[in-house]
Amino acid sequence: MQPATMQALYLDRRVRLRTDLPVPEPAPDEALVRVHLAGVCATDLALVDGYYPFCGVLGHEFVGHIAAATAAGRVGQRVVGEINVGCGQCADCLAGRPTQCGTRTALGIRARDGAFAEYLRLPLANLLPVPDQISDAAAVFTEPLAAALQVLVQRPVGPGERVLVVGAGRLGQLLARVLRLTGADLEVVARHPGQRQLLEDAGVRWVAETAVADATYDLVVEASGGPGGFAIARRAVRRRGTLALKSTYRGELALDLSALVVDEVTLIGSRCGPFAPALRLLAQGLVDPTPLICEQLPLAQGPAALAVARRPGTMKVLIDCGGGARQAAGTTGCG
Amino acid sequence: MQPATMQALYLDRRVRLRTDLPVPEPAPDEALVRVHLAGVCATDLALVDGYYPFCGVLGHEFVGHIAAATAAGRVGQRVVGEINVGCGQCADCLAGRPTQCGTRTALGIRARDGAFAEYLRLPLANLLPVPDQISDAAAVFTEPLAAALQVLVQRPVGPGERVLVVGAGRLGQLLARVLRLTGADLEVVARHPGQRQLLEDAGVRWVAETAVADATYDLVVEASGGPGGFAIARRAVRRRGTLALKSTYRGELALDLSALVVDEVTLIGSRCGPFAPALRLLAQGLVDPTPLICEQLPLAQGPAALAVARRPGTMKVLIDCGGGARQAAGTTGCG
Repeated sequence: MQPATMQALYLDRRVRLRTDLPVPEPAPDEALVRVHLAGVCATDLALVDGYYPFCGVLGHEFVGHIAAATAAGRVGQRVVGEINVGCGQCADCLAGRPTQCGTRTALGIRARDGAFAEYLRLPLANLLPVPDQISDAAAVFTEPLAAALQVLVQRPVGPGERVLVVGAGRLGQLLARVLRLTGADLEVVARHPGQRQLLEDAGVRWVAETAVADATYDLVVEASGGPGGFAIARRAVRRRGTLALKSTYRGELALDLSALVVDEVTLIGSRCGPFAPALRLLAQGLVDPTPLICEQLPLAQGPAALAVARRPGTMKVLIDCGGGARQAAGTTGCG
Repeated sequence: MQPATMQALYLDRRVRLRTDLPVPEPAPDEALVRVHLAGVCATDLALVDGYYPFCGVLGHEFVGHIAAATAAGRVGQRVVGEINVGCGQCADCLAGRPTQCGTRTALGIRARDGAFAEYLRLPLANLLPVPDQISDAAAVFTEPLAAALQVLVQRPVGPGERVLVVGAGRLGQLLARVLRLTGADLEVVARHPGQRQLLEDAGVRWVAETAVADATYDLVVEASGGPGGFAIARRAVRRRGTLALKSTYRGELALDLSALVVDEVTLIGSRCGPFAPALRLLAQGLVDPTPLICEQLPLAQGPAALAVARRPGTMKVLIDCGGGARQAAGTTGCG
């Protein structure tokens, strides 16, 4: 039996730990998930800052197990979950693009309580089983790893290409680990010594902002989220090259669209990605995200976890929501 | 024998007819072309307005015949010409992208005298023979038709897609005629009665600005060149759709890049295109651009031709440079 109430990190203008929230009641097509670990993402911090309107339980990166579901065979299964829930009836959903459904909900982001909690609910169809060889500490990266892979879904990369990632934070590090697998000539713009060390450890070449060559990269992925990073990315992409935008920006950015036309640059907005290939890469050990873990705190210290995640140079902060077997956190103490 | 001097429309801050210009002397790999007809394009008007720095003979859309060349077999051949001349040695040229060579010259646009003249010179490799079944009046559209086709080079269109062209001016009309061939569900935003009539005559559905549906088009091609047109295009493209930019804009445009990321829109800058398919479509009669001709004036009235091209709603204005057989102009008197 599940308890009636649970702990969760709740955002209502400001974020606080609540212990009085009812355990969610899943709809017939949904499952109740007991959360093991959850990861803090820049989007969580942006939501706290009021960048998007959201009121409810935060968090969308998680691994857990199915505690209750109408599909009895799946109870107990260790799972990760796709965060977008489409209406199933609009043109986008029917065209197989539920992540772009105009009335979608999104775990911990849009009209759906999230993963910084003991329990969450999601449609069974959103929950993918996690192969045994993937630890909880690695599985919790499935969602951001899928987001990194989305660049390759939208713009496949060949081994003969020159690729630049701008930004070596949480997402930039995952992008580097994924793009490395293509055999492309990859460089990553990294500012902080800790970021550079992580790239070196992963066999990826870093480059200082000032050393980025003009107009030479076939693909540039902007993952810094700042106007400065965008300017570097725009400058670095070759004529008729591709600039993929992985981060959101505050407000509008002035852009010389004429230069974009003259240089025939393709600009790609890129967001959520496919979970299945992310799980395959994790299961095969081709991507190891665990060196990015800086700190792991219990759910009761959730507000402190968000504060740690804000520190410049901090990589991944995990929140232990208590549902998993005790595992070594594997933190590197980076940042 | 060629004469020693020639007539040409010369831009040097202001544009004027000159009769004292020396006939160009082609380099060993170049040909001397006697121009028959040339077309006035928005880029010519922008150059006159000082939008780009250029000093020299204007004009880049032309049909003519080879008057002199080291390749004697080609003398007399009727030709159109690719306007960009790459250095042949940089990474872009060696990768087969001479139109993106950083030190390229471009006929009547960049460090190379243009086509509003009795004679011009271009590398033989740039000059494509024009099949007999294509009239001069149609062949002069090869360059802008190739530019319209470039959208399909960069983003092929399937027959099941919804496509919107914003703008029904010179380029919008050619885009409509090319995109119509894909079988896609095509609409074109048109303001002026004359533009609408031309679309109807070509079997293309036009739509008023206010009637454009939000976020429903798989591909939107912006060919209006104005911020208003860009706003319509941005609004019309569906999530995860493609927005192709065919026109240049004055100054910078403020753009909500975050919305681009969240909606996963792809923005494509698109400029010059391939001549060979343009000639195939013209030869097969699949595209007939001649209804777009509004007026044809002799080179001696070049300044007047530019003035006519500026009038709102004016389609194509041709300049008769005198080298061709006298043909019926086929003007519709549109505008």
